[in-house]
Amino acid sequence: MVPHLVTALNGPLLELEKKILAATPAIERWFRLEWQEHTPPFYCWVDLRNAGFKLAPVDTNLFPGSFNYLAPEVLPLAVQASMAAIEKYCPEARNIVVVPENCIDNPCYQKNLGILVQILRQVGLNVRLGALPEQLDQDLHLDLPDGSTLHLEPLVRSPNGRRVGLKDFDPCTVLLNNDLSQGIPSILENLHEQTLLPPVHAGWSLRRKTNHFAAYDEVAKKFGKLIDVDPWMLNPYFIKCGQINFQERDGADSLAANVDTLLAKIRKKYREYGIKEKPFIIVKADVGTYGKGIITVRDAKEIRDIERYRDVKLSAIKDGHEVTDVIIQEGVYTFERMNEAVTEPVVYMIDRFVIGGFYRVHAERGSDENLKAPGAGFVPLAFAQQHAIPDLRAQPGTAAPNRFYMYGVVARLALLAASLEMERTDPNPEIY
Amino acid sequence: MVPHLVTALNGPLLELEKKILAATPAIERWFRLEWQEHTPPFYCWVDLRNAGFKLAPVDTNLFPGSFNYLAPEVLPLAVQASMAAIEKYCPEARNIVVVPENCIDNPCYQKNLGILVQILRQVGLNVRLGALPEQLDQDLHLDLPDGSTLHLEPLVRSPNGRRVGLKDFDPCTVLLNNDLSQGIPSILENLHEQTLLPPVHAGWSLRRKTNHFAAYDEVAKKFGKLIDVDPWMLNPYFIKCGQINFQERDGADSLAANVDTLLAKIRKKYREYGIKEKPFIIVKADVGTYGKGIITVRDAKEIRDIERYRDVKLSAIKDGHEVTDVIIQEGVYTFERMNEAVTEPVVYMIDRFVIGGFYRVHAERGSDENLKAPGAGFVPLAFAQQHAIPDLRAQPGTAAPNRFYMYGVVARLALLAASLEMERTDPNPEIY
Repeated sequence: MVPHLVTALNGPLLELEKKILAATPAIERWFRLEWQEHTPPFYCWVDLRNAGFKLAPVDTNLFPGSFNYLAPEVLPLAVQASMAAIEKYCPEARNIVVVPENCIDNPCYQKNLGILVQILRQVGLNVRLGALPEQLDQDLHLDLPDGSTLHLEPLVRSPNGRRVGLKDFDPCTVLLNNDLSQGIPSILENLHEQTLLPPVHAGWSLRRKTNHFAAYDEVAKKFGKLIDVDPWMLNPYFIKCGQINFQERDGADSLAANVDTLLAKIRKKYREYGIKEKPFIIVKADVGTYGKGIITVRDAKEIRDIERYRDVKLSAIKDGHEVTDVIIQEGVYTFERMNEAVTEPVVYMIDRFVIGGFYRVHAERGSDENLKAPGAGFVPLAFAQQHAIPDLRAQPGTAAPNRFYMYGVVARLALLAASLEMERTDPNPEIY
Repeated sequence: MVPHLVTALNGPLLELEKKILAATPAIERWFRLEWQEHTPPFYCWVDLRNAGFKLAPVDTNLFPGSFNYLAPEVLPLAVQASMAAIEKYCPEARNIVVVPENCIDNPCYQKNLGILVQILRQVGLNVRLGALPEQLDQDLHLDLPDGSTLHLEPLVRSPNGRRVGLKDFDPCTVLLNNDLSQGIPSILENLHEQTLLPPVHAGWSLRRKTNHFAAYDEVAKKFGKLIDVDPWMLNPYFIKCGQINFQERDGADSLAANVDTLLAKIRKKYREYGIKEKPFIIVKADVGTYGKGIITVRDAKEIRDIERYRDVKLSAIKDGHEVTDVIIQEGVYTFERMNEAVTEPVVYMIDRFVIGGFYRVHAERGSDENLKAPGAGFVPLAFAQQHAIPDLRAQPGTAAPNRFYMYGVVARLALLAASLEMERTDPNPEIY
């Protein structure tokens, strides 16, 4: 089942789908050449929003969980892509440790770990799970509903202090499935003999959304030129707004002024394309993830309003870090609906390959709200027919594989932006 | 649907499946390291025979057709694998010409070409079909049942004679889907500026089955050691027998003596493993393909018998080449049955990746006969559940994905043998 688009004005997106399908050989060659210059993150998911008139990534996650939401049929693609990745980083690799997220008690997350272990074993690695010392101080056995068992062990530094591993297991690669939003754990600092995937500066304690979207700006510009579309069709405007002290209301005026500026820019574009929707803005902490602290703003006066401003404090940010920098980003409506529930596609990639995806279906949310927030209405729905190759003869907008191909292209633009971002923010570029 | 095994003595194969599944990380790592040393052919299919007590490749085809027999769901794996291949040979590649087989009038072959073109386009290449001048002297449009059109054009040398292409199309890569069994066409000779995939010495006019199986001997030995099994479980014995003049009956005695020797070796192994079946031998021309000129021999006296010897003449060899060298190979029963019809698995690979496969189901053939011969009873049947990853907890012999994984491992042993064979038979190793 493929969500339907509830917008009369879906002309531009059908045009985009048509252009992307027609330009497939050029697009794939362009990616091939870009990947000669840049190294993709080991894995990644990208949240997209499809507004009918615009299709854009809104979040690029370098520590993807929820592999259990993918259709099992795509796992061979994940295995094949991981083989290509491991070959590049460390062909000799024998042992790998996966560092799990903090929510190891969550049954859903445990299933995700189970799938990750399955994939990596099939790639040709001895896989073990090593938890951060702050998560675990002794071995833990978790029984999964499918009858398998996960065995978690505490990470330890090697006696000489140069490596990290488990008591009797020396990995050459450490795969982080933990987004390090609480900071870089000391046990992972100063490791120069092992490959950390992704590198620690991909962690949310160091990463900034504005760095990502600045890189995405460049990528979208190049891509727009390649297939001759306005890059705005793929790219939400944004402004970085810093030095805000939410406790003291410092910076509220500057925030409101920036919201005004951005709304004016969006209104201009909406006029240009005859879009009748009401523009809106998303204000997010520049640091942090997990869909918390994300506020929808439709007018700058909401920022000036004290009650509302309190909401915008974004104090709910993961792990309690205080916010001083925010990203003010053009909101992108999601006009895809599944049985009337709002949906947004999530595309999974390993290395440079799209391996599959699912829809976030959220019955209780509006088309201008973040769907990643937890809530009773959230249902994952694996893409249908995702393992089919596009049908060139289908009418734009009618074939699921064609829509997914377009999603895969835009998600890979965000993936490429993430590689640029990682290169530019690398604290030790010489040993990268 | 998975064929069932009709043999009481399937113990050893279940043991093999168990060992292969348990050793997956070691096996995949071993392949990864082998592919650091050796380059896999661009594409390949391998015919396997599953005797319950033994599983072995019997034919390794470096010009695979019949892509239309694969389940459409595996095409994304084919695209992903081809991307990895093209990146290695020629990341800059923009244009590719596919040279079709001689049977371009065959509707089934035309469908195969249609799929190949789809895959390569998705990889990011402009794809056109260039027929050999002896096949075609003007453009040809072929309408396929799915509504698409194939456009074939005659290959031409560039004005300076250094490149091959089409009238207005200069490819950097030429993909041969024609096995060159009639010899290397002059239009493909002395091309040093373009990548030919596979190289012309993979063509059946130069290739010898005995070179392949000699390389396979080595690979099977190494692999047997890795997972601790008798390599014979995966490897049919063979003897090369040369200087036979079938017209004059020269060499009949030597042929018969070799058949005797080989039958004695097989009998010994059958005794070792308590196998009650009757050993048999396959005599094949050392050159040539297409399943013609393949004779089953159960006793050396059949060779001495004049009538039978005439059959063994193998004069039906493709494109009428005369046979002087034969390979005498241990026959491997196929004990897989689908609704009582004899079946044998065919595994497809692109670059170093298994992408899928199908069963040849042949109602009119016996378990000791070649199933590739054309005949009314031949039905292709795409592997079921082929895009699933193995289930470690399943009992040996019960899970389709586990059986296919084992097939994929053995097929890749043959693929690796083909790379060794190509290295060793390369007439210009310095420019390889």
